[in-house]
Amino acid sequence: MNLPTRNTQIQLRRQRDGIPALDDFQTVDAAIPDVAEGAFLVRAIYLSLDPYIRKAMRGDHPGHAKLAPGEVIYGRSVCRVVRSRHADFKPGDYLVAETGWQTFASLTPKKVVQRIDPALGPLSTAIGVLGMPGLTAWGSVAHVAPPQVGQTFVVSAAAGPVGGTAGQLAKLAGARVVGIAGGKEKCDVALRTYGFDACVDYKKAGWEDEMRAACTAGIDVYHDNVGAPLLNALVKHFNLYARVVLCGRPADYHQPGFEGVSLGPIIGKRAQVKGMVVYDYEHDMPRYQRTASTLMREGKLRFKEDHTQGLENTPAHFLKLMRGENIGKAIVAVGPEKG
Amino acid sequence: MNLPTRNTQIQLRRQRDGIPALDDFQTVDAAIPDVAEGAFLVRAIYLSLDPYIRKAMRGDHPGHAKLAPGEVIYGRSVCRVVRSRHADFKPGDYLVAETGWQTFASLTPKKVVQRIDPALGPLSTAIGVLGMPGLTAWGSVAHVAPPQVGQTFVVSAAAGPVGGTAGQLAKLAGARVVGIAGGKEKCDVALRTYGFDACVDYKKAGWEDEMRAACTAGIDVYHDNVGAPLLNALVKHFNLYARVVLCGRPADYHQPGFEGVSLGPIIGKRAQVKGMVVYDYEHDMPRYQRTASTLMREGKLRFKEDHTQGLENTPAHFLKLMRGENIGKAIVAVGPEKG
Repeated sequence: MNLPTRNTQIQLRRQRDGIPALDDFQTVDAAIPDVAEGAFLVRAIYLSLDPYIRKAMRGDHPGHAKLAPGEVIYGRSVCRVVRSRHADFKPGDYLVAETGWQTFASLTPKKVVQRIDPALGPLSTAIGVLGMPGLTAWGSVAHVAPPQVGQTFVVSAAAGPVGGTAGQLAKLAGARVVGIAGGKEKCDVALRTYGFDACVDYKKAGWEDEMRAACTAGIDVYHDNVGAPLLNALVKHFNLYARVVLCGRPADYHQPGFEGVSLGPIIGKRAQVKGMVVYDYEHDMPRYQRTASTLMREGKLRFKEDHTQGLENTPAHFLKLMRGENIGKAIVAVGPEKG
Repeated sequence: MNLPTRNTQIQLRRQRDGIPALDDFQTVDAAIPDVAEGAFLVRAIYLSLDPYIRKAMRGDHPGHAKLAPGEVIYGRSVCRVVRSRHADFKPGDYLVAETGWQTFASLTPKKVVQRIDPALGPLSTAIGVLGMPGLTAWGSVAHVAPPQVGQTFVVSAAAGPVGGTAGQLAKLAGARVVGIAGGKEKCDVALRTYGFDACVDYKKAGWEDEMRAACTAGIDVYHDNVGAPLLNALVKHFNLYARVVLCGRPADYHQPGFEGVSLGPIIGKRAQVKGMVVYDYEHDMPRYQRTASTLMREGKLRFKEDHTQGLENTPAHFLKLMRGENIGKAIVAVGPEKG
């Protein structure tokens, strides 16, 4: 093997309230870690950028301590085992694992999120449509609030990996699907790539009228990816007994004094608002991956990824995600798929 | 018959934002209305005072237009037919009907909420434990979020007719029941009259510690009668997949810039928050009344009413309800049960 001899890391340079800035991060050249007995060395291929990382950095996410300056930023990667002192992990094995933002990591099994079967789809999809974002959509549409045939299913952050997959699964289940996204480019992805019936650009003046026109039969299921302000704006379009799946709220992440949900309209609509956490559906990952992989091969489930190349570009790509400018799953291509 | 010859009415004197004052009402001596063909004259016996009336007065409740000065205040009564030009309503029939705040009303059938079978229980309970407040509790406990044996069921406004009945029904279903109420006297009603396992006085310093101590096994079902601030304070005690029934929020009624529900903790607990409206369960009223009547006779379902005497005392009794000072169902005894 012709591996690099050094490990590139992106570390925290300083904590900050609110949206981070580029100089809160520092790129450091470190030694490739030793591999203790029972551990194995992995090389990152695709680094996953996700909204929860912002919360994890400041210790505001389950299982993540607040980062101190000089510590490697949290993150999961599609990675490959390159050296091993653990019988269950062989060089060449593909994994999704908690590597952090670095090119190499020495791991123990508890840092492994899942093994990857490369036959299921492109490797990068293991952190996208075939990974946690896809499973989140599956948890919502298959478990928490399955839409009925002919119902109107609305999903926010529609161009993203969770929203895009949820909408396509809802459409496969017979629903009419209306996306909500910020900007024309994202709406085009929802319409052309994902095949939604409509997509409303909430940044456009008059979007509420468009929303009404897109949901003349009322909203039956709303998959919420963005938080309370949009939910409060949509309730008036709900049908009685509408169901809401709450599965993330990046819009709330930077707002200590955020807007909460108004209960009166929820009562009036007899709405059911259900919190969900993707980890509750990990047991169903094999079934989801088989299903989604087949749908992908048949061209019935499509995905969009926003790649950047090179670990050193990770902070900028992450800030793009924080600003909501990514179109599709945000990924950093860190290293080669083989070799 | 020896009826009064005049009709006493309580009318609106002026609209006001916020909590009404005594001089927003006026007592007027009016003629007893004529009875047109197809109508019937009723005499009020027990007038029901309910939080929704405040919203109805200002036109902020379904089916109620904003009152103008000089109009009779909205309200339902237990009443008796005293004269009739409708074949289906005979003198002596007992009804719950939309009479408004007055001693006599000429009604058509669409103003009738239900007929009363006096054998089911005391007449006044037709607007309390055997009426809409009881049916609200039944809708919650029997339909929307039935507690399981051994689960912890928490109910706010615990001394009131909805909360008190909901808690007792939950206890009959095998739950451990914890009430929340304002003041020692209300907590005593929840503990001694209704037999709750615990009741926490939220007006007492340290009430959150008492709440924690009363719910060591976590909260499984929360029946909410008061709105977002208390819900936000209780979520931390929720067990995973806790269910919340939203059925009224008098605390929100006077607050245009009210506090909304924070979504983050709802997601973290995978909680299910369900709005309910009692009118959806009217079809089940006969079954509820049979069940509740039997339980009352057996001493297993108890109720508390806060009576005042005389229609002229209605505004003061209503303001007491608005201030949350009533203990049990607020009722005005307007006229005799017979004669």
